[in-house]
Amino acid sequence: MNKTTISELGSCRDREAEIWGWAFNKRSSGSLVFLQIRDGTGFCQAVVDKSVIGAEAWEAAGKVTMESSVKVGGKVVEHPKHRGVFEIHASRIEIVQIAEEYPIAKKEHGVDFLLDHRHLWLRSKRPWAIMRVRDMVIRAMGEWLNDNGFIKIDSPILTATSCEGTTELFAMDYFDLGKAYLSQSGQLYQEAAIFAHGRAYDFGPVFRAEKSKTRRHLTEFWMMDAEAAWVGHEENLKIQEELISYIVQRVLDKNATELAILERDIEPLKAVKPPFHRITHKQAVARVRELGSDMGDDQDLGGDDETALSKEYGKPVFVEKYPAKVKAFYMKRDQENSDLALCADLLAPEGYGEIVGGSVREEDYETLLKRLEEFKLARKDFEWYLDLRRYGSVPHAGFGIGLERLVGWICGIRHIRETIPFSRLINRLTP
Amino acid sequence: MNKTTISELGSCRDREAEIWGWAFNKRSSGSLVFLQIRDGTGFCQAVVDKSVIGAEAWEAAGKVTMESSVKVGGKVVEHPKHRGVFEIHASRIEIVQIAEEYPIAKKEHGVDFLLDHRHLWLRSKRPWAIMRVRDMVIRAMGEWLNDNGFIKIDSPILTATSCEGTTELFAMDYFDLGKAYLSQSGQLYQEAAIFAHGRAYDFGPVFRAEKSKTRRHLTEFWMMDAEAAWVGHEENLKIQEELISYIVQRVLDKNATELAILERDIEPLKAVKPPFHRITHKQAVARVRELGSDMGDDQDLGGDDETALSKEYGKPVFVEKYPAKVKAFYMKRDQENSDLALCADLLAPEGYGEIVGGSVREEDYETLLKRLEEFKLARKDFEWYLDLRRYGSVPHAGFGIGLERLVGWICGIRHIRETIPFSRLINRLTP
Repeated sequence: MNKTTISELGSCRDREAEIWGWAFNKRSSGSLVFLQIRDGTGFCQAVVDKSVIGAEAWEAAGKVTMESSVKVGGKVVEHPKHRGVFEIHASRIEIVQIAEEYPIAKKEHGVDFLLDHRHLWLRSKRPWAIMRVRDMVIRAMGEWLNDNGFIKIDSPILTATSCEGTTELFAMDYFDLGKAYLSQSGQLYQEAAIFAHGRAYDFGPVFRAEKSKTRRHLTEFWMMDAEAAWVGHEENLKIQEELISYIVQRVLDKNATELAILERDIEPLKAVKPPFHRITHKQAVARVRELGSDMGDDQDLGGDDETALSKEYGKPVFVEKYPAKVKAFYMKRDQENSDLALCADLLAPEGYGEIVGGSVREEDYETLLKRLEEFKLARKDFEWYLDLRRYGSVPHAGFGIGLERLVGWICGIRHIRETIPFSRLINRLTP
Repeated sequence: MNKTTISELGSCRDREAEIWGWAFNKRSSGSLVFLQIRDGTGFCQAVVDKSVIGAEAWEAAGKVTMESSVKVGGKVVEHPKHRGVFEIHASRIEIVQIAEEYPIAKKEHGVDFLLDHRHLWLRSKRPWAIMRVRDMVIRAMGEWLNDNGFIKIDSPILTATSCEGTTELFAMDYFDLGKAYLSQSGQLYQEAAIFAHGRAYDFGPVFRAEKSKTRRHLTEFWMMDAEAAWVGHEENLKIQEELISYIVQRVLDKNATELAILERDIEPLKAVKPPFHRITHKQAVARVRELGSDMGDDQDLGGDDETALSKEYGKPVFVEKYPAKVKAFYMKRDQENSDLALCADLLAPEGYGEIVGGSVREEDYETLLKRLEEFKLARKDFEWYLDLRRYGSVPHAGFGIGLERLVGWICGIRHIRETIPFSRLINRLTP
């Protein structure tokens, strides 16, 4: 019998076909058994009728437990009421392996229990849908970057120093060279890469040994850093708008099933098209204070501030021009006000908060040297980075996208631990 | 003046255009200066004629040093002798930044010097070409996997135990949970993922704290692990053949310029199409002994053995069915001879050696438990992995591709330290 996948069932309509997968539910009604089957590509129902199937197959259907692996063949029939939904009227059932009693039942489980069983929980509909969206976000990101001249230059993970001078680093012994640290960002390396390729990006895991236990933090997460020569503040935001819009529209186009499983309201996603909203940090501070925040003039927005602010908008909003002193040393200052950085954080709407952070980079050697001193960073650790301003320096800008926060917003998932296959938190290192 | 990129110069033929980039060479001849410009997308020559250009621009051309950043505008003219090669007859030159004396000269440098200056060396033609091929290999790999039903499921980097029981791991303190280790392979996680998605892959950095100092070893490198449900030994090899062939043909199609820069003989690459050669481990042992190796019957092939063997072939060769005891615990045994594993390593021809390693995985719970004991692995570390055989186990197989070895072969580069942007070796952690 012709083996097919559930996603391709429609092409076997009114013909015999066989699917190989797992039974995720079973219901009996007299001489009928309804097996719910999933095979990774989708979900479908197999109807087993005692009066038409052989005794052996009927017995097999009776034995099938939740998550048993099975091969089910029969006629592919469109659901009488749901167009485009196909069932199999089974004529053959083969059990591959009978599953033991499955630990994840239909009852509600606590999230710790589910994360302890993440290797199994991934099979459930919601995680399945989230991971498919994640996959599409990754694909779409690569497509847009490739189409717009960006070359993938993988940044190193093992580094000798912290890129941005923070202390929240995982450290390990590295042969005879002392300590190595896990990278928090590949940005500085992308800055080196643009002098070879004009436009470059990386995409890989980064690490923060931060004791934060919020819904927005993981100790290991995936980051995309993009950098482009000859790009200033305005074009930097334009690139981000176009990239984020492309990703969202691709997911809407390709993952309707997944978004429906997640009960994601897709209307706000449909609105994600350039131009995005723009406000200054100063305006943002004023607004969040009106909303009850006690943040100071020269502070970064806190998580709660971002949530409050991003609830005000129907599509993403750039918060531009932060006080330079709360941002990284490499950010170029605003010509009109040198206390401000030529930067922007992009907040996803509906309360999701920051998904992208970017800036123009300081390209002048002397100014950058002064910044290193101001930020109390050791010059010797940044000699190679300073070289980029010695040999053909160019104006340039870039940004970083936190994959899990982006996926969380698109999927409508508040806690980003569900947006990565195997989450690493301060209290979780397994499975 | 219309800004364009060097790759798009042809579309501005006989019109005025401007390119922004870096001068990588300069030659003077009386009242002519020839500036060699690169902008990341390609290389071109700008001809500066004193008799037609203004005094200010002529003076600027004189000041340009190697690696200075410049904007050069003028008429785009096809080279009189080389079709498809375009020059700019300059009418405007703007210096963005005059580079200090560039440390990488035309003279030969030692590789340590070059790796110390990797952030600059990346600009040279060979590294530029290698990184562009690497980018295309990554794109092509993703394209083929996407088109063939594989979903990207990122494996975790931080793990609580070694997947395969080796001791060459980087270790660090992880909050209150004791030690965390950097992953050497995401395979076991991909095995979990196929129960949700049917076919899954990861692509990310992996780490080996191995004191090897050979041309085939890095402490940090990129690996793609693919895994598929319902796939046996034969289909596993077929998937690998098709994927590798697709990647090589895409590079041939898209990177002719880069391969020419690398002086790569493309004839052997053109031959990379299914089916690949296949020999058993037993045959391989016999052959390398004829070639002078002293390897034993039950040993893995050493680096030199792989080199010698792979020089014998004009296209990739699978070495199948290794003695099970030299391979990993999870490999399924050959039904015809239970001392052998249902595995294959794929050797690139021309002496390059292993680029892919794969196998069928043991899907039987009791057998896998026995293997863990035989390999002296702690059952408690693999409970989650054993779960995959408790709940709907299915036959499955997969393989891992080492990106840098693959890129090294395609580019014709013997030492893989040149195939990654910022290499990490036992004696190198910077820049």
